Amino acid sequence: MAPEKPVVAVTCTAPVNIAVIKYWGKRDEDLVLPINSSLSVTLHQDQLKTTTTAAISKDFTEDRIWLNGREEDVEQPRLQACLREIRRLARKRRSAGDEDPAALGLSYKVHVASVNNFPTAAGLASSAAGYACLAYTLAQVYGVESDLSEVARRGSGSACRSLYGGFVEWQMGERADGKDSIARQVAPESHWPELRVLILVVSAEKKLTGSTAGMRTSVETSPLLRFRAESVVPARMAEMARCVRERDFPGFAQLTMKDSNQFHATCLDTFPPISYLSDTSRRVVHLVHRFNAHHGQTKVAYTFDAGPNAVVFALHDTVPEFVAAVRHCFPPESNGDKFLKGLPVPPVPLSDELKAVLDVDPTPGGVKYIIATQVGPGPQILEDPHAHLLGPDGLPKPA
Amino acid sequence: MAPEKPVVAVTCTAPVNIAVIKYWGKRDEDLVLPINSSLSVTLHQDQLKTTTTAAISKDFTEDRIWLNGREEDVEQPRLQACLREIRRLARKRRSAGDEDPAALGLSYKVHVASVNNFPTAAGLASSAAGYACLAYTLAQVYGVESDLSEVARRGSGSACRSLYGGFVEWQMGERADGKDSIARQVAPESHWPELRVLILVVSAEKKLTGSTAGMRTSVETSPLLRFRAESVVPARMAEMARCVRERDFPGFAQLTMKDSNQFHATCLDTFPPISYLSDTSRRVVHLVHRFNAHHGQTKVAYTFDAGPNAVVFALHDTVPEFVAAVRHCFPPESNGDKFLKGLPVPPVPLSDELKAVLDVDPTPGGVKYIIATQVGPGPQILEDPHAHLLGPDGLPKPA
Repeated sequence: MAPEKPVVAVTCTAPVNIAVIKYWGKRDEDLVLPINSSLSVTLHQDQLKTTTTAAISKDFTEDRIWLNGREEDVEQPRLQACLREIRRLARKRRSAGDEDPAALGLSYKVHVASVNNFPTAAGLASSAAGYACLAYTLAQVYGVESDLSEVARRGSGSACRSLYGGFVEWQMGERADGKDSIARQVAPESHWPELRVLILVVSAEKKLTGSTAGMRTSVETSPLLRFRAESVVPARMAEMARCVRERDFPGFAQLTMKDSNQFHATCLDTFPPISYLSDTSRRVVHLVHRFNAHHGQTKVAYTFDAGPNAVVFALHDTVPEFVAAVRHCFPPESNGDKFLKGLPVPPVPLSDELKAVLDVDPTPGGVKYIIATQVGPGPQILEDPHAHLLGPDGLPKPA
Repeated sequence: MAPEKPVVAVTCTAPVNIAVIKYWGKRDEDLVLPINSSLSVTLHQDQLKTTTTAAISKDFTEDRIWLNGREEDVEQPRLQACLREIRRLARKRRSAGDEDPAALGLSYKVHVASVNNFPTAAGLASSAAGYACLAYTLAQVYGVESDLSEVARRGSGSACRSLYGGFVEWQMGERADGKDSIARQVAPESHWPELRVLILVVSAEKKLTGSTAGMRTSVETSPLLRFRAESVVPARMAEMARCVRERDFPGFAQLTMKDSNQFHATCLDTFPPISYLSDTSRRVVHLVHRFNAHHGQTKVAYTFDAGPNAVVFALHDTVPEFVAAVRHCFPPESNGDKFLKGLPVPPVPLSDELKAVLDVDPTPGGVKYIIATQVGPGPQILEDPHAHLLGPDGLPKPA
């Protein structure tokens, strides 16, 4: 049955972010308030993004959501929390302002469709981009202009950092109601144009502990995590912001690696212990330290989230040699031509000296492929109506 | 040339110990003083021991030492520190007492020969047994009866814990000169007769960071290690001593695992990170947690030192089923008949329920073999002159 009233639809995109000061552990599970602040780099949407269409109509009889073409349960608590929060903000705006209540569509049901331009199987945290995109798109539909940190955060803590481009900090805040637990931009995407990001996609060998459950167990059992949150992270946040502001790559790189290692150390200190790093992850760690030792300076940094994929930072002139080193240590198996995705990286030969320093038995296929990308902007509104993922009937367009 | 004067020889044995509250980090490199106390279990010498003969003679022209049949450099600093310290104690005793100075042989050079009854290639920390045996044997030769903690410690910190049987703590002490940094017995080897120890010997895949260098880097770079030493270990020492005194196996087992995990967490928090656990080590961790989950209680515990071998604690009635589970997860490759060494363990079938819970892809050869042992006594003097490793000429007997 076609709707009788027009459907109002908005389509937006949002980026993936990768933390360089890690978020691990909530002080409030319901409000998704963290035990420490975190800082991330927003990745460019040319390589990795979520696209979301939200549509409201008087004729929709229920809220519905489709992820990557498949309808999902709209009743899941995190989704409900986001919807409740955006509608609360919209009501607040209405009561404060002079808008026509009907135009806000507050009483309308919403249809949402969302797709990623990267395989979820790659193990790249898609929930941050997904919930940031949901929050941003719903805000357009409902005419909400206030800070969206809480809406995104309710879906997935780190999603609030995907609301901005460039370098973003999520301030943990102090208030019990979480009103001061917000994301803000430390520097825009144009600030450090030489910075490049390589995502080394590694095959996961086993089922991983989900990050929600993992965090909870860590908070409950790891004495080191509490100490990290209270006594280590505050100084690291300040130091990381300084490194970003001053474009101090060695400082940025070393602190990024140290903080990734410390996060994984607290996972190991959890009981039972959590292990997200695979043998391939450890080989990448080794490769990066050898590469840096060979050059006598910190030219490359790794960081790992709750999975085995490595995210590597380097300045643009270091990238070709490092990619050659990755190819040397992890010879591509069948997909030699598709090993490198994203930004083009010119092939360069690897020096015999560096090969000798790397000192590894090659692990064929250990790294499945590399996505080369860079720092990018925050969420975008797509004005082209062809971009909508939902048709005029409010249902997903055929793929 | 045969010596003109008789050679005075003594032969002793000393055990290996495995820490359940880990020692990692020195506050004084020269005096080998630790940043925290530690607690260990002495393993039985029927399975693992060092045997050392020390001989003194007026005719020896220099100090000499043979390890496992091969002459080693006697000038190495740790060995020299042990020799200096034992001679200092001997002089102290002589000046305090009424012994004939000549009888003490203080001016005589010493020959030392030492062998292990287990392959050093197995990666079992042999230095603790080795230096404990050296200290104990030299004490017999020189007539020293005082506390030998410092002599052994100067060779290798954890060696002082091998000076006693049963359950042993190394009190970190507070004094700058280390005089109160001593080992003492918490409970004798007869205290907990049901306790068994399984050493799962794992193939090391790569060169490991030596523990001396590793500790130093950890102390210099890991914020978590300092916190652990100051704020976590003191309470754990008291709790572990309680578990031992009360023979509380679940408490002992859980704290043993937590402390091993925390030690390895501080290694990962070191920069560059140190990784002693291999994929096989992690599979053993997983196996133990699954085994315990299946039984709904903590029946088995793992601990790992600075290498991939697992040391597993269980009560005697748990051992057959756990060994069967290890065989299931790590099918022996060629040495099925030599897979289990040491104490006999009757074969038992593995239930289908447990197989299902373990949920692993078997890793053939991941565990090379198991040494089954138990808690054992401290150093022993061998009265049988045939036990001497040095002949009447003061040189090693032919093997």
